Amino acid sequence: MVKKSALQKARASYQPKLPTALWGAVKAVEGAPTQSVANQEEIKALFPNTYGLPTITFEKDIQTKNTAPVNVGVILSGGQAPGGHNVISGLFDGIKTINKNSRLYGFLMGPGGFVDHNYIELTADIIKEYRNTGGFDIIGSGRTKLEKVEQFDKGLEILKKLDIKALVIVGGDDSNTNAAVLAEYYKSINAGVQVIGCPKTIDGDLKNEMIETSFGFDTATKVYSEVIGNIQRDCNSAKKYWHFIKLMGRSASHIALECALQTQPNYCIISEEVEANNLTLAQVVDNIAAVIANRAEKGNNFGTVLIPEGLIEFIPAMKALIAELNDLLAANPQFATLAPAAQREFVLANLSKDNADTFASLPEGVARQLTLDRDPHGNVQVSLIETEKLLSEMIGKRLAQWKEEGKYVGKFAALHHFFGYEGRCADPSNFDADYCYALGYNAAMLINSGATGYMSSIRNLTNPSVQWLAGGIPITMMMNMERRHGAMKPVIQKALVDLNGKAFLKFASQRDKWAAETCYMYPGPIQYFGPAEVCDQPSRTLYYEQGGK
Amino acid sequence: MVKKSALQKARASYQPKLPTALWGAVKAVEGAPTQSVANQEEIKALFPNTYGLPTITFEKDIQTKNTAPVNVGVILSGGQAPGGHNVISGLFDGIKTINKNSRLYGFLMGPGGFVDHNYIELTADIIKEYRNTGGFDIIGSGRTKLEKVEQFDKGLEILKKLDIKALVIVGGDDSNTNAAVLAEYYKSINAGVQVIGCPKTIDGDLKNEMIETSFGFDTATKVYSEVIGNIQRDCNSAKKYWHFIKLMGRSASHIALECALQTQPNYCIISEEVEANNLTLAQVVDNIAAVIANRAEKGNNFGTVLIPEGLIEFIPAMKALIAELNDLLAANPQFATLAPAAQREFVLANLSKDNADTFASLPEGVARQLTLDRDPHGNVQVSLIETEKLLSEMIGKRLAQWKEEGKYVGKFAALHHFFGYEGRCADPSNFDADYCYALGYNAAMLINSGATGYMSSIRNLTNPSVQWLAGGIPITMMMNMERRHGAMKPVIQKALVDLNGKAFLKFASQRDKWAAETCYMYPGPIQYFGPAEVCDQPSRTLYYEQGGK
Repeated sequence: MVKKSALQKARASYQPKLPTALWGAVKAVEGAPTQSVANQEEIKALFPNTYGLPTITFEKDIQTKNTAPVNVGVILSGGQAPGGHNVISGLFDGIKTINKNSRLYGFLMGPGGFVDHNYIELTADIIKEYRNTGGFDIIGSGRTKLEKVEQFDKGLEILKKLDIKALVIVGGDDSNTNAAVLAEYYKSINAGVQVIGCPKTIDGDLKNEMIETSFGFDTATKVYSEVIGNIQRDCNSAKKYWHFIKLMGRSASHIALECALQTQPNYCIISEEVEANNLTLAQVVDNIAAVIANRAEKGNNFGTVLIPEGLIEFIPAMKALIAELNDLLAANPQFATLAPAAQREFVLANLSKDNADTFASLPEGVARQLTLDRDPHGNVQVSLIETEKLLSEMIGKRLAQWKEEGKYVGKFAALHHFFGYEGRCADPSNFDADYCYALGYNAAMLINSGATGYMSSIRNLTNPSVQWLAGGIPITMMMNMERRHGAMKPVIQKALVDLNGKAFLKFASQRDKWAAETCYMYPGPIQYFGPAEVCDQPSRTLYYEQGGK
Repeated sequence: MVKKSALQKARASYQPKLPTALWGAVKAVEGAPTQSVANQEEIKALFPNTYGLPTITFEKDIQTKNTAPVNVGVILSGGQAPGGHNVISGLFDGIKTINKNSRLYGFLMGPGGFVDHNYIELTADIIKEYRNTGGFDIIGSGRTKLEKVEQFDKGLEILKKLDIKALVIVGGDDSNTNAAVLAEYYKSINAGVQVIGCPKTIDGDLKNEMIETSFGFDTATKVYSEVIGNIQRDCNSAKKYWHFIKLMGRSASHIALECALQTQPNYCIISEEVEANNLTLAQVVDNIAAVIANRAEKGNNFGTVLIPEGLIEFIPAMKALIAELNDLLAANPQFATLAPAAQREFVLANLSKDNADTFASLPEGVARQLTLDRDPHGNVQVSLIETEKLLSEMIGKRLAQWKEEGKYVGKFAALHHFFGYEGRCADPSNFDADYCYALGYNAAMLINSGATGYMSSIRNLTNPSVQWLAGGIPITMMMNMERRHGAMKPVIQKALVDLNGKAFLKFASQRDKWAAETCYMYPGPIQYFGPAEVCDQPSRTLYYEQGGK
C-alpha cells in the first residue's frame, strides 16, 4: 500500500476521458495496405508475415460481441515517461471490458523481467494505487534490449505458462522496432502470441503521420517549462545572471524547442539546425555571445539560454573529432600511461589538422575529458561533458576578448542548470493522462481484433480527447534501413526537429525579438483542476504542427 | 504590458482571502509594552525612540473613519521570494481603502533605488498585471545594504519630494534590522516618515513567536518538493541511482527539513544537528555511506539524499579550517605565485595539526578550491564548493573501501541536483498569495495607525486564512546583540532549525524508517484550483510547529 500525497489522493479519482470511438462495443475497420517509409523491398523481405498490413481504425459497433477472456503481458522499456501507469490502467480496463476474467501480467524491471520470468499479476487493487500517477514504479523499467531469438524463445515459455495471448511493449523507437521483430518472429513460428507497441518517450522523437506524439513529452516539457519560467522570472527580477539551462534529450531537440515555445527564452540552440548549417562550436559560442553583447548594450546583463543535451554530437566538427579520437586512442593503448601534458601533445600531433584545430579550441578541461573518460567499448563519453558549463566558459572568454577590443561593455555572470530527471516521472498532465489511458485501452482493442506488429495509435490530439481517433498502425510502416553497429538494420525512422516544420518556423520567426527584448513567458506548474484553457492544452509543438497559429 | 500564460491569466482574477479582522473599518488595539529577546539594556539604548512599544492587534471597528490620503514607498530587498507582488498588491489596496487618492511608489532594484532616487509610481494598471504572480520584477530587487546615515538622509530627500509618509521594506532579517534602524533614525530627527517591515525569505529563518513564518518559504519548498518527488519516483522506477540533491539556504536548514517532511527521502542532512553533534565531514560521509550500504544489503542500490547548501559552514572542523586558511592566505600573499603542488605542501605545513588533518582528508579538487577562489575580502568562497559532488565523491571512496573489506556489496552510481533559482520566483501558492496580500494590506493599516519600527504580523496561519490574526510587532522585540564584522550590533535573532522543535522531532522519529525502507512521497505540483486539502495546506513545518500530528 503506497502512502499518498493529497494531490495523489485527489487525482486517484480522475477518470481519463476516452475517445467516443472506444465507448462500448468497438469495431475494427481496416484501411488500405501499408508500406514502409523507405527500403520497401528489404523490409518486406525481413517481415514476410507482418509487412504490408492495413491500418486499423476503431468505430462504434452496434452490438457487443461475446468475447473470451484474454491474458495479456506488459513490459515498460527504457527511460521513464509520465503516463506509463495510465497506459497500464487503460490496458487493464480494456481487457476487463473484453471479458472480466481476463488477466494482466506485468514483467518486472523491463524486458529483462520477460526474459528471466520475473512478473506479477496486476490486479484491480494494484492498478487502483497507480491511476493517474507518474513513474514506472508499478513494475519498474529497464534497458535490456529484446533482440535475440533466444530471448524471444525464453520469453515465450513464460507466456505459454501464463496462457498469455498478447504482449504489450511500452517503449521508444528502438523498443518498438524490437516489438515488430518479436511480432514477426512469433507469427513465423505460429506462437499464438500477438505483440502490440505503445509510443513512449519524453524526447518526442517517435512520431510520424500516424503517431502524432509520443506520450510523456507533454508532461515532461511542461515541468521543464515551469522551472525555466521560474528561473526567467528570477532572472528578470535580479537582472544580473545569464542562466544556461541544459535539457534532456540527446538524439533530438524537440524538448528544447517545445520549452522555448512555452517560455520564450533569449536563446535556444536547436541541434538539428547547428548540424544543417555545419556550425563549429566556436560559431555556436559566437552566436550566443553576440546576443549577450547586444543585450548588454541596452544595459541588460541577464538572460536565458536553452541547450539540448545532445548538442555536441550534432556539431559536425565535434563529431569528426570524436570519431578520430575514438580510433586514435583505441589504436594507442600506451596513451593512458602518458602524463597529461604529454597526452595533449600526442593528441595534437596525431590528429588530422582540422580535428587538431577543433581540439585546440576547446577549454583545456573539456579537451582533457574527451581523452579521459571512455565507455567499455573505448568510446569517448560525450554525455559526461557538461555542455552548459563548456558553453558559458567559452562565451565568457569570447566576451572578455571583445571587451578588450572595445566591442562589449557588460558584466557576464553565469549560472547553470540541467533538467531531465525532474520531469520524466511527474504526474501526467490531463493530456498525457487521457492520451496514455486511451493508448492502453486501444491496445486492448487491437489485441481483441487479432492484430500483431501494430502500434497503438490515437490521433487528432489537438481536439478534445473525446474526439480523438483510435486505431492501430503496422510498425513496419514506420521503418527504414539504417546502419547500426556496422550492419544495415530495419528500424523505426527517428523524428528529428524538422527545420521546415511549423513548430520550428514559429520559433525561428520569433527568436530575434526574444533575444533583443525580454519576452519571457511563465507557464507555471501543471494544473489538474482548473479551467480547460489552463489544464487541457496540448504541447505548443503539437498545436503548431496541427495548424495552430 | 506583460504577455501572460494561460495560468497567469486565470490566476489574475484570484482574490486573496483577507482575514476578517481586516474587512472594512479597522481598529488598532495596543497590547503590553515589549522588550527585546535579549540584551535589553543595550538595545533600549540604541533605540530610544522605538524600543518597548506595544504589540498591535487589529480588530473590526464599528465605524469607518474619514482618513486623509497617504503616500507610501515600497522597497524589495535581497533575494526573491514568491508572493512579493502580492505584498505590493495588498499594500496598494490597503492605502486605497484608507483613501482613494493615496499613492504608492516603488523604488527600483532594491534599496539602491531609494538612495539613488530611482522609482516609479505603482498605478492600478501596473498592479493589475502582477497580482498573484511570482518574482520581484514589478520593481526589481537588490542587495544594497541600507545602514548608513548618509543613505537615510539621501533617501529622505525623495520621500519629501514625493510627500511619502511611510516606507515599507520587504526583506529578510538583515533588511528588517535595517528597517528598525531607519525607523529609529527618522523618528529621532522628526522626519515624519514611518517605516514598516515585511518578513520575506524562502530560507524560513526569519520567524519567532509573533512571526510564524516568512513569506515565500511555503511556495519555494513546495516547488522543490515537487521536483524532489519527481526525482524520487524516477529513482524508484529505475532503481539504479543515488540522487544527491542540494537545496538553497546557507544560513539554516529549514528548507531541507521541510522538503524532507514533504517527500520522505532516504536521508536528509540538517546542518544544525551536524554542528550540535560536532560531526566531522568524514562522519557525515560515514553516516550516509552506512545508509547506502544497508540498503544495498537488501538489493536496493538507489536512494535520495537532501543536502542543505550551507552544510560546510556548520561543520565545526571545516569552519575552523576555513578560518585558519583565511588568515594564513591573507598573511602570505606570495602563496598565489606557487605551483599547485607547492601550494598544497605550504598549506599542510603551516596549518595547525587538526586543520591540516581536515585539509588532507578532503578530495584534492575541493582542497584546491578552498585555496583558489577567494572573495574580494580575501575569504574562501565556501558557496562555490559543490557540496553535493563533494559528498558523493567521498561516499564513493568510503564504499569502495568497505567493498574491499567485504562490508559492502552494492553498486553505487550518483546523480547531482541543486535547486534554488527554480523556486524563488514561482507563482505563490494560495497560502503565500493570501499571506502576502494580508501582510501588505496589514502594513497599510499599521501605517494608518501611526506605527513605525513595526513588522507586519499575520498569525494563526494553520487556520483558514479568513481566521488569521492581523497586527504589528515592534522590530526591536526580535533583536539581540551579535558580533558582526568585529563589532557588536543589534540584529534580529536568526531562527535556526530547533533540534527540540516539533518539526525536527517529527523528522527524527521517522528518518530511520525512511532510510531503511522506501517511503517516498510525491507531492506533485502546486495546485490553485482544486480541493482545499490539495490547494490550501500550510507547510509541514508550520503544521507541526502549531501542534499538528
